[in-house]
Amino acid sequence: MSQPIDIAVIGATGTVGETLVQILEERDFPVGNLHLLASSESAGSSVPFRGKNVRVREVDAYDFSKVKLAFFAAGPAVTLSFADRAHAAGCSLIDLSGALPAERAPQVVPEANAGVLDGLKAPFQVGSPSPSATTLAVALAPLRGLLDLQSVHVTASLAVSALGREAVTELARQTAELLNMRPLEPSFFDRQIAFNLLAQVGAPDADGHTSLEKRLVRELRQVLANPSVKISATCIQAPVFFGDSFSVTLRSADAVDLKKVNAALERAPGIELVEAGDYPTAVGDAVGQDVVYVGRVRGGVDEPAELNLWLTSDNVRKGAALNAVQVAELLIKGLL
Amino acid sequence: MSQPIDIAVIGATGTVGETLVQILEERDFPVGNLHLLASSESAGSSVPFRGKNVRVREVDAYDFSKVKLAFFAAGPAVTLSFADRAHAAGCSLIDLSGALPAERAPQVVPEANAGVLDGLKAPFQVGSPSPSATTLAVALAPLRGLLDLQSVHVTASLAVSALGREAVTELARQTAELLNMRPLEPSFFDRQIAFNLLAQVGAPDADGHTSLEKRLVRELRQVLANPSVKISATCIQAPVFFGDSFSVTLRSADAVDLKKVNAALERAPGIELVEAGDYPTAVGDAVGQDVVYVGRVRGGVDEPAELNLWLTSDNVRKGAALNAVQVAELLIKGLL
Ligand SMILES: NC(=O)c1ccc[n+]([C@@H]2O[C@H](COP(=O)([O-])OP(=O)(O)OC[C@H]3O[C@@H](n4cnc5c(N)ncnc54)[C@H](OP(=O)(O)O)[C@@H]3O)[C@@H](O)[C@H]2O)c1
Ligand SMILES: NC(=O)c1ccc[n+]([C@@H]2O[C@H](COP(=O)([O-])OP(=O)(O)OC[C@H]3O[C@@H](n4cnc5c(N)ncnc54)[C@H](OP(=O)(O)O)[C@@H]3O)[C@@H](O)[C@H]2O)c1
Repeated sequence: MSQPIDIAVIGATGTVGETLVQILEERDFPVGNLHLLASSESAGSSVPFRGKNVRVREVDAYDFSKVKLAFFAAGPAVTLSFADRAHAAGCSLIDLSGALPAERAPQVVPEANAGVLDGLKAPFQVGSPSPSATTLAVALAPLRGLLDLQSVHVTASLAVSALGREAVTELARQTAELLNMRPLEPSFFDRQIAFNLLAQVGAPDADGHTSLEKRLVRELRQVLANPSVKISATCIQAPVFFGDSFSVTLRSADAVDLKKVNAALERAPGIELVEAGDYPTAVGDAVGQDVVYVGRVRGGVDEPAELNLWLTSDNVRKGAALNAVQVAELLIKGLL
Repeated sequence: MSQPIDIAVIGATGTVGETLVQILEERDFPVGNLHLLASSESAGSSVPFRGKNVRVREVDAYDFSKVKLAFFAAGPAVTLSFADRAHAAGCSLIDLSGALPAERAPQVVPEANAGVLDGLKAPFQVGSPSPSATTLAVALAPLRGLLDLQSVHVTASLAVSALGREAVTELARQTAELLNMRPLEPSFFDRQIAFNLLAQVGAPDADGHTSLEKRLVRELRQVLANPSVKISATCIQAPVFFGDSFSVTLRSADAVDLKKVNAALERAPGIELVEAGDYPTAVGDAVGQDVVYVGRVRGGVDEPAELNLWLTSDNVRKGAALNAVQVAELLIKGLL
C-alpha cells in the first residue's frame, strides 16, 4: 500500500467531481487529507467521503502547496485560472476540462498510452480526455497490432449529463410536459430534446465542426499515437440521461480478421465484449460500470478491410472521473 | 388533368397505408374507385377519403382486375402472397415492403432515378425503397455530378414508428413508467427503449448485419446506379416517435468543393437545406413535411475529399407513402 497523499478536487460539487470523490473511496485510493473546492456558491456545503462529510471550500484563495495532487473538474476557465498556481506550488495536476495543450499536459488513457507518463517529470501535468476520446481509445488500443488503421468514422450519441445537471433536469421536464400534453417551453436546450435528436452539441466553428468534435479527433490521435489516422466525428445529443453510445466504422489497410479482433477485445483490459446477436446499451449496461462495452463487432457488408463496432460507456465514470483516478493510480506508483 | 384511375391500397389501416390514402387526397391524385384492403381483422372498418368513409375489405378474395394500380403497404409476406395475382390480372403495383427483387420491381426514388420507369412495360412493378435508402438517395442524387463517390458511411437513427403502432405505444408507456418511478416492464421491445438507444433494429445475420442494413446498402446502390460504391450502414433505434435522422460521411476521389455542394443541394428538388450554424431535427422540422432536410454540410476536419451531412425526414411520408405516390404520379403520365 502506497503512502497516503494529500489531494484536492476542484469542482467537487459537480457531476464529475462528486463521482470522482466516490471513486477515490471505492478504489481505496491512498488519500491523506482531502480538500474539496468549488466556487463561492457552494463553499460551505459538504460532500461525503469515507463516512464523513467533507466541507467544500472556495478555490480562489486556496494554497495548492498543501496538496501533492489536484484534480481539475470544474471546466476549462477554472483550469486556466488555477493550473499555473498549482504547478508553481509543486502540485501535480490531472485536468478533466481539456483546457491545457497536449504539450503541457498530454492526454492519457491508461489502457492505451500509460507509457506517456514515464516521460514526465514531477510535478506532473496530465489530461484526462473527453469521454468520447477515452471510450474510443479503450476500444481501439487493443486493435493496434491487428489493424493498419487508415480511418475512423464515428457518430457519438451523447447523454445530456455531459452538459451538467441543468441539462438532465431539462430532459426530464420536457418529457413530462409532452406526456401530459402541455405546451413545450425549451429553456436549457434551444429546442425540443425529448423524443428528438439534436445534430450538434455546442456551436460549430466556421468550418461547421463543434469543439467537442475537434477535441475528439485531436485527443484520439494523440492517445493512439497515430497522428495521421483520418477521423470523421459527429457528436449528437440524444434524449438519454446517462451513458454515451458510439457507432464506429474503422478502415484498415488490409482485410480484417474478425476472429483475432474478437479475441483481442475479449482479453483487453477495461472492455466487456458482448456476444454477437446481443448488444450493449447505455442504460442497460454501461451506466454505473467501469468498463467500455463493445458489441456488434462485424466486418463490412462487402468490404473486407472494414470493421464496425458499437460502444457504450458511462460518460461520468470511465469518460471522466474513473479515467482520471486511474491516471492518478499510475502516478502514485513511486512517482508522486 | 389525367383520367381518373382505379386504385387499391393493401394495408390501408396501417401507419403507412393511412398516410398514403391521405397523400392521394392532398396531392389531388386522379383516383377513380379507391379500394382499401387489409386483413380480416380490420375488414369492415373504414378510412376517410375526400370527405367520405371508405370501407376496408379483406385482401384474400380481392379481384385485382378491378383496379389499374395497387399499392402494397402491408409487409413483405402480403406482397409475396398477392403480387403475382395482381400482376396476372394486369394490375400495376408499387411495393413498399421491399419483398420483390430489383430485377422484378426496381426501386425508384423520383428525385434520383425516375428514368428507370421509362424502361418498364405495363403492368408495371416498382419498389419504393426503405425510408433510409430513400432519404439518402434524395440527398446524394444532386451530388452525383460533383463527387466521384467512393464511400458512404451512415448511422441511421430510426423512429419507433418504423416498427408500426405497437412500438409507438410502447415508447410512450415505458417513458411514463420511468417518469412515475414505476418498475419498467418491456413488452414490444426486449429492453428499455425510453431514454436509451438500441444498437440494432431486428435480428442480425451470421455476419452481424441486420436485414434493414443490408436493404439500405442494396437499395441505395441500385437507386444511385452506383453498384461499386462502398457503403457501411448502422441502423439504430432511437427513442423518437416519428422522423428518422442520419449522420452521413461521404468520401470522394478528389477534394470536395463545399460551395458547389451547397449550391447543388439548395436547388435540388425534394430538399430543404438548413443554413450553417443551425440544423434540422426530426421532431422540429421533418415530421409532417414532404422534403428531406439537410444540414451540417461540412468537410472533413482535415480530409479535403470528405463531406459530412446530417439528414432528417419523415419516415412515413417521404420514407414510404409520399415516395410511392410520387412514383405513381410518374407512372400515370401517359403510361398507365
Ligand atoms: N459531465 C460529463 O460527462 C463530463 C465528462 C468529462 C469531462 N467533463 C468536464 O468536467 C468538467 C466539469 O463537468 P461537470 O459535468 O461535472 O459540470 P457541473 O456538474 O456543472 O459541475 C461544475 C463544477 O465546477 C464548479 N465550478 C464552476 N465554476 C467554478 C468556479 N468559477 N470556481 C470554482 N469552481 C467552479 C462547480 O462548483 P459550484 O457548485 O460552486 O458551482 C461544480 O463543482 C467540465 O470541464 C466538463 O467538460 C464532464
Ligand atoms: N412505418 C414505416 O416507417 C415504414 C416505412 C417504409 C416502409 N414500411 C413498410 O410498409 C409496410 C407497412 O408498415 P406499417 O408501418 O404501416 O405497418 P402497420 O402500421 O403495422 O400496418 C400494417 C398493415 O398491413 C395490414 N396487414 C397485416 N397483415 C395482413 C394480412 N395478412 N393481409 C392483409 N393485410 C395485412 C394491416 O391490416 P390490419 O389492420 O388488418 O392488421 C395494416 O393495414 C411494411 O412492409 C413496412 O416495412 C414502413
